[in-house]
Amino acid sequence: MYDGVIQDLIDELGQLPGVGPKSAQRIAFHLLAADPEDVKRLSVVLADLKEKVKICTLCGNVAETEMCRICADPRRDITLICVVEEPKDVQAVERTREFRGRYHVLGGAINPIAGIGPDNLRIKELLQRLADGVVQEVILATDPNLEGEATATYLMRMLSPMGLHVSKLASGLPVGGDLEYADEITLGRAFEGRRTLTS
Amino acid sequence: MYDGVIQDLIDELGQLPGVGPKSAQRIAFHLLAADPEDVKRLSVVLADLKEKVKICTLCGNVAETEMCRICADPRRDITLICVVEEPKDVQAVERTREFRGRYHVLGGAINPIAGIGPDNLRIKELLQRLADGVVQEVILATDPNLEGEATATYLMRMLSPMGLHVSKLASGLPVGGDLEYADEITLGRAFEGRRTLTS
Repeated sequence: MYDGVIQDLIDELGQLPGVGPKSAQRIAFHLLAADPEDVKRLSVVLADLKEKVKICTLCGNVAETEMCRICADPRRDITLICVVEEPKDVQAVERTREFRGRYHVLGGAINPIAGIGPDNLRIKELLQRLADGVVQEVILATDPNLEGEATATYLMRMLSPMGLHVSKLASGLPVGGDLEYADEITLGRAFEGRRTLTS
Repeated sequence: MYDGVIQDLIDELGQLPGVGPKSAQRIAFHLLAADPEDVKRLSVVLADLKEKVKICTLCGNVAETEMCRICADPRRDITLICVVEEPKDVQAVERTREFRGRYHVLGGAINPIAGIGPDNLRIKELLQRLADGVVQEVILATDPNLEGEATATYLMRMLSPMGLHVSKLASGLPVGGDLEYADEITLGRAFEGRRTLTS
């Protein structure tokens, strides 16, 4: 146990995800030895975080203004929506440079064990966005796990009577992976979704 | 790339030791979803860090006052000094509950590649502490690596004319370790430092 502030800092850092007591101590002593300006900047950013970061009123992504950068971009295709669980998933899709539409961030996935039902997600907001008939296609890009699949199935049922084109990201072998090490479910999905190469 | 503050926070967190871009993003979103009080507390502790944490004028350990808790403790044996590299080494020795003397924190080890020579360490302060003849024994507890060994050898030479009892921590097999997996230098040291069991 250290004295006062340094121990407080170690305790606070130890609460962060993926930071154990050893890392917390290492980071604390790093900060103690670091340039005071660097430490101050981190402190200020943390103080600003809750005030400055907003949620985009349209898509639910993180934003600094009423509307996020993507929703505010006039070059985006407004007839296309990609539904994801979290803001970090938006970044993941953006990195592919494959998608030119807008997003809808649900804020999680259906998870009865954690007490998260459809009402806890931004599904009502999605249906409102689809009401005016501008959007033609919805791509479901929830995580390929139990909760994500359940959410996609739920959304599919909600959206099917609306006459939209609804699709889901392909499951299959990851690029650069090894067939031998693929789990049986992934390999099964890869078979199921196989693409015809000859006409 | 995210907008504004959230990206600033990810960038700042990514500078910390052992925190990569993925962890930085995870921590940033954890903080965004966390209780505002928790985030504020971390921000305040960081702001206080440089102001409140002092260096003990006697031993060089981290302290909240002029003198650290250990140096200020009258139950400590003032004839005994354990020399360590960093404040975290003080904590490591304290955890053993084997040592009842005081410490001297050098603030690093001799490392010519990083440009750290004896003058950059608190060696002058150590010699000043030893000048009045109260201290009888000095235990060198620098790290068992190249820089630590070099520092211990340097200190040994400086202290040997002073008529003190100078010792160094034992090198050997770590308790709970496996002889088979010990590196040859450690095993060599264990042979060199073997203890006679029969009289």
